[in-house]
Amino acid sequence: MHSRAIPPLDRSLETELRRKIDNKTKPPGSLGRLETLALQIGLVRGALTPTLHQPHIVVFAGDHGAAKAGISAFPQEVTWQMVENFLAGGAAINVFARANDIDLTIVDAGVAHDFGPRENLVDAKIGPGGTASYLDGAAMTAEQCATAMTRGAAIVAGLAAGGCEVVGCGEMGIGNTASAALITHCLTDAPLAACVGRGTGLDDAGLARKTALLQQALDGWPERNADPLAVLARYGGFEIAMMAGAMLAAAQRRMLVLVDGFICGAAALVAARLAPAFLDYAVFSHLSMEPGHRLQLAALGVEPLLDLDLRLGEGTGAALAWPLVRAACAFLNEMASFESAGVAEKL
Amino acid sequence: MHSRAIPPLDRSLETELRRKIDNKTKPPGSLGRLETLALQIGLVRGALTPTLHQPHIVVFAGDHGAAKAGISAFPQEVTWQMVENFLAGGAAINVFARANDIDLTIVDAGVAHDFGPRENLVDAKIGPGGTASYLDGAAMTAEQCATAMTRGAAIVAGLAAGGCEVVGCGEMGIGNTASAALITHCLTDAPLAACVGRGTGLDDAGLARKTALLQQALDGWPERNADPLAVLARYGGFEIAMMAGAMLAAAQRRMLVLVDGFICGAAALVAARLAPAFLDYAVFSHLSMEPGHRLQLAALGVEPLLDLDLRLGEGTGAALAWPLVRAACAFLNEMASFESAGVAEKL
Repeated sequence: MHSRAIPPLDRSLETELRRKIDNKTKPPGSLGRLETLALQIGLVRGALTPTLHQPHIVVFAGDHGAAKAGISAFPQEVTWQMVENFLAGGAAINVFARANDIDLTIVDAGVAHDFGPRENLVDAKIGPGGTASYLDGAAMTAEQCATAMTRGAAIVAGLAAGGCEVVGCGEMGIGNTASAALITHCLTDAPLAACVGRGTGLDDAGLARKTALLQQALDGWPERNADPLAVLARYGGFEIAMMAGAMLAAAQRRMLVLVDGFICGAAALVAARLAPAFLDYAVFSHLSMEPGHRLQLAALGVEPLLDLDLRLGEGTGAALAWPLVRAACAFLNEMASFESAGVAEKL
Repeated sequence: MHSRAIPPLDRSLETELRRKIDNKTKPPGSLGRLETLALQIGLVRGALTPTLHQPHIVVFAGDHGAAKAGISAFPQEVTWQMVENFLAGGAAINVFARANDIDLTIVDAGVAHDFGPRENLVDAKIGPGGTASYLDGAAMTAEQCATAMTRGAAIVAGLAAGGCEVVGCGEMGIGNTASAALITHCLTDAPLAACVGRGTGLDDAGLARKTALLQQALDGWPERNADPLAVLARYGGFEIAMMAGAMLAAAQRRMLVLVDGFICGAAALVAARLAPAFLDYAVFSHLSMEPGHRLQLAALGVEPLLDLDLRLGEGTGAALAWPLVRAACAFLNEMASFESAGVAEKL
């Protein structure tokens, strides 16, 4: 259902957009990556003077059955505690969203905690206790996976209806670098060990244990294949499935999508495998320190904007990259041309 | 005079700053380069809760006698035309400064043009026709060089008196990548050819011609040495000397200094050779496409924040990096600690 609805970019504007960018008062090409971004923004929004109103980051939180097996340096309860931190405004994503004028929505995709009714928390719980452990079977049923994607899509549809034109995804979920590693391994040709990282800070022994457990999870699924939805249901988290649905829905609405780091990248990998046109709408914010992230980006053939040794998640990389995207849009719309400014061109 | 007045960083706060950063609700180290930046900001400003009020970029414009010899892809008149563009608000630096809430000052350091009295242009002209050509002798006298540095310093002193705590430098001057290449060659061990780039867009023949002319400029100064002030006077531009003076003055006042790309980097190289403590106060915004920039950064032992294939100057890289610096300061000041947020720490 998701794969067919993403509109291909209308390339008829490309020549005129390139001319507009080249006629700005600067040596041709001298704004580098920002010129590529400006072109993408114009094509995504289908306009020579595009807008990117109401930037919004949605943080999806979910718990993982496998987290209790010892794949993380932090206890599972940190997931709900961090959700409380988001709601109180004290986490990194809160700070960066405020600093860069980005709206923020926090979604309970399936945290193993009863928050009760909370004004600023979207209750989209798929299961009250988080996913099942992929060490024992599938993390979620195909139905749960589809429901999660649909709920993610519905949240983005609501934002779009309110005027949002650019959306970033972020996540919180103790254990979710393990899920992302498994998805990355299954959907690219990369060996498992290359996809597994230290997450929130495992030491060497912890990393070895995590890798061994994930190998066990792979061995437990002998009928493994590269169907993105099957992989997502087997190894994903509710928050990862919700992000995949949200990102596809955003592209369907010609919104620009800011992709965060490794876990968000796993969702983007699923989205791109379901609908390759998704990539036209996606901006890859940064290169995470998680080693599997580089493999995802290479498999997708994309380049990240920032390389700051980040490995926090929450959408923080997307929030930090937003001012660059905004600047690219602004130069396209606001800079003078050689003609309008009366500046001589190249000799 | 400049070299002695920069206060060494007060390292007594370092332990407490590191503890504060580590106690934020995130895995230790997970904000990567932003954590290093936050530490630097705290040390520069001498505070656990530092401020960086009134970010300001000063764009220094100047003309180069050697520009007429054919070292640039653009005619010299573009310098004054771009100054008009700055004053009208239509250049890239205007757009990025507006987008990122940065104040902007435009300085005529010695443009070969009579602007007349202009409300928004600081007249700090060192010479009415730009520098002399270094193909015939020194670009400026030692006295002109000192005056330019003093005027740059005075402009920063004025900003500081008004409450500015973070300053970026930018420049405009047809021919000034050639000056920067000569300075880089003289103040590092890098061969001339490695320091010379295409500037605003020379083709292969133009690049060869530029390199040959710069070799001629070097041959014309047989008594060459690595005295930064002598090199600056011989090959510099008024805008480069003014930036060097401005940057040193900013560090003297414990302001954070945002260094832009290759030409600003040449001024930073001079500043650092005069006063190594300058580097404690400097943030290197981005890696320029000009090949000599990488050599400057390596010689100074510093890492840039952004790598976006920029090669525009004007302070655009500094303006684009500012949101990252602001975000680093904000997380240090605003993020909750594990204790305050009630989040469990590492197992």
